[in-house]
Amino acid sequence: MKPIILTGDRPTGPLHLGHYVGSLQNRVKLQADYQQFVIIADAQALTDYYDNPNLVRTNVEQVALDYLAVGLDPAQSTFFIQSQIPELYELTFYFMNLVTVARLERNPTIKDEIRQKNMKDSIPAGFFCYPVSQAADILAFKADLVPVGEDQNPMIEQTNEIAKRFNYLYKTECLKEVKSLIGSVGRLPGIDGKTKMSKSLGNAIYLGDSANDIKKKVNLMYTDPNHLKVEDPGTVEGHVVFSFLDIFDTNQTEVEELKAHYRRGGLGDGVLKKRLIDILENMIAPMRQRREQFQKDPAYVQEVLRNGTARAREVAAKTLSEVKSAMGIVY
Amino acid sequence: MKPIILTGDRPTGPLHLGHYVGSLQNRVKLQADYQQFVIIADAQALTDYYDNPNLVRTNVEQVALDYLAVGLDPAQSTFFIQSQIPELYELTFYFMNLVTVARLERNPTIKDEIRQKNMKDSIPAGFFCYPVSQAADILAFKADLVPVGEDQNPMIEQTNEIAKRFNYLYKTECLKEVKSLIGSVGRLPGIDGKTKMSKSLGNAIYLGDSANDIKKKVNLMYTDPNHLKVEDPGTVEGHVVFSFLDIFDTNQTEVEELKAHYRRGGLGDGVLKKRLIDILENMIAPMRQRREQFQKDPAYVQEVLRNGTARAREVAAKTLSEVKSAMGIVY
Repeated sequence: MKPIILTGDRPTGPLHLGHYVGSLQNRVKLQADYQQFVIIADAQALTDYYDNPNLVRTNVEQVALDYLAVGLDPAQSTFFIQSQIPELYELTFYFMNLVTVARLERNPTIKDEIRQKNMKDSIPAGFFCYPVSQAADILAFKADLVPVGEDQNPMIEQTNEIAKRFNYLYKTECLKEVKSLIGSVGRLPGIDGKTKMSKSLGNAIYLGDSANDIKKKVNLMYTDPNHLKVEDPGTVEGHVVFSFLDIFDTNQTEVEELKAHYRRGGLGDGVLKKRLIDILENMIAPMRQRREQFQKDPAYVQEVLRNGTARAREVAAKTLSEVKSAMGIVY
Repeated sequence: MKPIILTGDRPTGPLHLGHYVGSLQNRVKLQADYQQFVIIADAQALTDYYDNPNLVRTNVEQVALDYLAVGLDPAQSTFFIQSQIPELYELTFYFMNLVTVARLERNPTIKDEIRQKNMKDSIPAGFFCYPVSQAADILAFKADLVPVGEDQNPMIEQTNEIAKRFNYLYKTECLKEVKSLIGSVGRLPGIDGKTKMSKSLGNAIYLGDSANDIKKKVNLMYTDPNHLKVEDPGTVEGHVVFSFLDIFDTNQTEVEELKAHYRRGGLGDGVLKKRLIDILENMIAPMRQRREQFQKDPAYVQEVLRNGTARAREVAAKTLSEVKSAMGIVY
């Protein structure tokens, strides 16, 4: 049996290069060697977009299109819609008895998000408890590995605490502890040079962007503000075009030469941007084509989601049944 | 259409005279004129008995037996097992987005129970959020009325806040606000004279108690500790036997005469206790008989629960479907 991976996204917007570098690329590589479940976490997205369910609803299909566009293969990776698997709600309910309010308050991810979103006294209970729901997602599929960024380690810890507590309390081994699979590729900055590419910061290049969008966005990229004339020596650190070339340019020897040239002066940003535009366009063009092709066939996309969800539901139902047996609440 | 009532119990022990006076008696009266759903709230019981699911599991059938024993008629009242209706978990999950953590912290019932159970820093998230789950139970059945004690009004308020918020946010009228039906009969004290009859205080007379148990418990009842000789004048206030006669004796004129006699002296506790034993035994004997009869036929009890649960599930599924339509998360 291949080891099981659980991964996925909250459908709150189309996916961008940050997602590609941070996870999608990796998923495409991993899908042959792992049994990969890819959750489109709409119910989780609703814990803070509850006042805009339409945004979430629309993006479920957009995210599925992005998956197909980057080359996730439904025959190898099981995509599914979280809200369509009622077993996950039930597991969440039982697991909520095993986590204290104080423990949730200490969750660093939740703390950060509450600060970022300025929630203070208006934290929805659903949002507050989402680490438990996330644990239910992971444990339902008996995942061996969850690919995460370093800042998501608290999620893995919470999940394993629940698994251990459940197994101990109900004298079972039905829940499996999970390991994190920390990606080797770093974070992609936004085009404005902000640390993170993100939809809400408005600094993203989307997988569905047109050739023209890509050109415009690369031309807007933050470079060296003190590099006024071509002949001036320039700074490479924080230069977003170079950050992108570091990641996407397959000829790293030439990138190093370009950096040296830029540093000593005589190399303009225009040349670098042109190079990056070509690289990104070559990478994104086939995705865009596949995306357009699948977009013309919504019935197929829906079938992929329906089949994936049915397959995922079987697995979750089996785990729930084991969980209920262990608790002895079978009627 | 008859108005809808939702009522029920947490299956954490057999039911006692306190339940009978506080609610069961009333349910038997109401079942002809209302469409009555009676929830055996095992999932809710697990929010604080998660470490003893077996206790909850066992008591589901005990509570069903008590219902049949007191004369709840499965043809008129729908008994059902909460955990067997996954739609309730799903509704809870969505409703949790509409209630803030701060609001739950202010819930007086939760605050009291946390103090009573000395939970402090070990409050399970499931317990903390149970008012939302309770609201889901009520709203799922579109109850018009919920029979409650006065101390349970916060539950009705929380439920109606969720209904209003949901209907407003998702531009629907699919959730119905509920009214409380406050019972006319007061609280029954425990045999020790403590304010409340309760399993955990060990001061209860159970509906399944034998004639001998009843005799023993009445003889243990708290009376007037200063009434040492029969000829002494006695105090009626706080005299548990009189509190019971006030509620269960159909001849209240005689009860008043007995009180006057007790006050002036010359009436012993033994006479009063004998009278109460007869009254309780006459009331409980037919329940005990029915209970024993149904106990011999577990298949019938299971069928009652299965049918009731199936009927209740249909109603909850219809509400869930309306809720999901209103949120626009239908796939």
